[in-house]
Amino acid sequence: MPIRKMIAAHPDANGHINEPLAEAIRSATDCAVTCTACADACLAEPMDMRQCIRMCLDCADVCTAAARLATRQTGDNRAVLATILRACIEACDACAAECEKHDHRHCRLCAAACRTCADDCREALAGLG
Amino acid sequence: MPIRKMIAAHPDANGHINEPLAEAIRSATDCAVTCTACADACLAEPMDMRQCIRMCLDCADVCTAAARLATRQTGDNRAVLATILRACIEACDACAAECEKHDHRHCRLCAAACRTCADDCREALAGLG
Amino acid sequence: MPIRKMIAAHPDANGHINEPLAEAIRSATDCAVTCTACADACLAEPMDMRQCIRMCLDCADVCTAAARLATRQTGDNRAVLATILRACIEACDACAAECEKHDHRHCRLCAAACRTCADDCREALAGLG
Amino acid sequence: MPIRKMIAAHPDANGHINEPLAEAIRSATDCAVTCTACADACLAEPMDMRQCIRMCLDCADVCTAAARLATRQTGDNRAVLATILRACIEACDACAAECEKHDHRHCRLCAAACRTCADDCREALAGLG
Repeated sequence: MPIRKMIAAHPDANGHINEPLAEAIRSATDCAVTCTACADACLAEPMDMRQCIRMCLDCADVCTAAARLATRQTGDNRAVLATILRACIEACDACAAECEKHDHRHCRLCAAACRTCADDCREALAGLG
Repeated sequence: MPIRKMIAAHPDANGHINEPLAEAIRSATDCAVTCTACADACLAEPMDMRQCIRMCLDCADVCTAAARLATRQTGDNRAVLATILRACIEACDACAAECEKHDHRHCRLCAAACRTCADDCREALAGLG
Repeated sequence: MPIRKMIAAHPDANGHINEPLAEAIRSATDCAVTCTACADACLAEPMDMRQCIRMCLDCADVCTAAARLATRQTGDNRAVLATILRACIEACDACAAECEKHDHRHCRLCAAACRTCADDCREALAGLG
Repeated sequence: MPIRKMIAAHPDANGHINEPLAEAIRSATDCAVTCTACADACLAEPMDMRQCIRMCLDCADVCTAAARLATRQTGDNRAVLATILRACIEACDACAAECEKHDHRHCRLCAAACRTCADDCREALAGLG
């Protein structure tokens, strides 16, 4: 997990890592890729997967933004970080609930990635103080 | 404003446009570009603009995500759209407050773009019902 | 077009604007939003629009990256800017060719946005020297 | 590496994975996060790191786009994928060369991530046929 080393290498970090936030960055990054892949796989399915594609595309966008904001340590933008983490939790929970309705392997993998990301963002949010 | 025509051309829209949402898409798109440019201009200034750069980079990321989600009309993802609009309002208000502390022309233009985007996202959020 | 004012306000610009590059930023930004909307509208159509959705999603991603790189003026990254402009031209030409096969109003609007963006990126690329 | 499972789960993949492309997706995703973190860490350094920040921000944007395009398997967009892989190679090589000029731990980690990504994109590009 390269992000942990990068966070510890920030000049203001003195080797300290906000572990829940680092975990949320990793999960949101994984979830963004997974949702991008699930939207694409759903598109290739023979049945109507429109609602699932919509939610996966939205979730990928929110996760990407959340990971980028959570990565930054210079200065302070905690209130904004909290709102994007909240949006990420909402997007991941909604996407997971939709993916769990379908039997496709890509939907099951995507639901799991979304649930993990939502949990990790909740932990990170609680740790923001 | 090409986004209005695209929204009206969606097969489910029947020519109808959610005007506040269309305005929010335009403002968030403008604000994302403006914040990207302001972060870059702040980086070239001789004084310490780190906090402003941080907020502009974060605001650009949130606005980009908000514009993408607000553009989609297939299926429904209203609860998630509401949370990203809330994140966008928070990011834009915070970035505007920081930019307003500085006399640079790029900061003044960026603050104005952020205030417009926050207002338009508030209208769009109120209109989601 | 707010991007022109932002470019002129950069501390290294002294009010000077690289007009073809500014135009390319505007076109790529418009094209990214238009392709995001066209992918979403295609998804709602009753016929098989998978290839068009794929190309619109890809084109939106490349245009977003191209607009962000072209906006930055601090330091120099000309060789990289040239390669992303080339990728943007390729993505827009391919997406336009696909959209032109379909009679949907959103596809025609999208094809036009892609053609404009490809042309403007060609001009900007020629002007990089 | 969740992306391998997602690629194999695509309905058109029949469990087959384009290994070099999967590796490029993983590397580009890691590199995007690493470059975002390096730009942020460089911003907090006391010396002038502007050129490095510029290149890291640009590289993050190109890697993000490359990873998204390379993830999609529905339909075909090979010529466009090739151009974004080329842009990614150029961005990563340029960013690595700049980061290698600096002694910061975050720059050394970032240079390594960029070199890996450039190599993996070269392999993926060669494998596109």
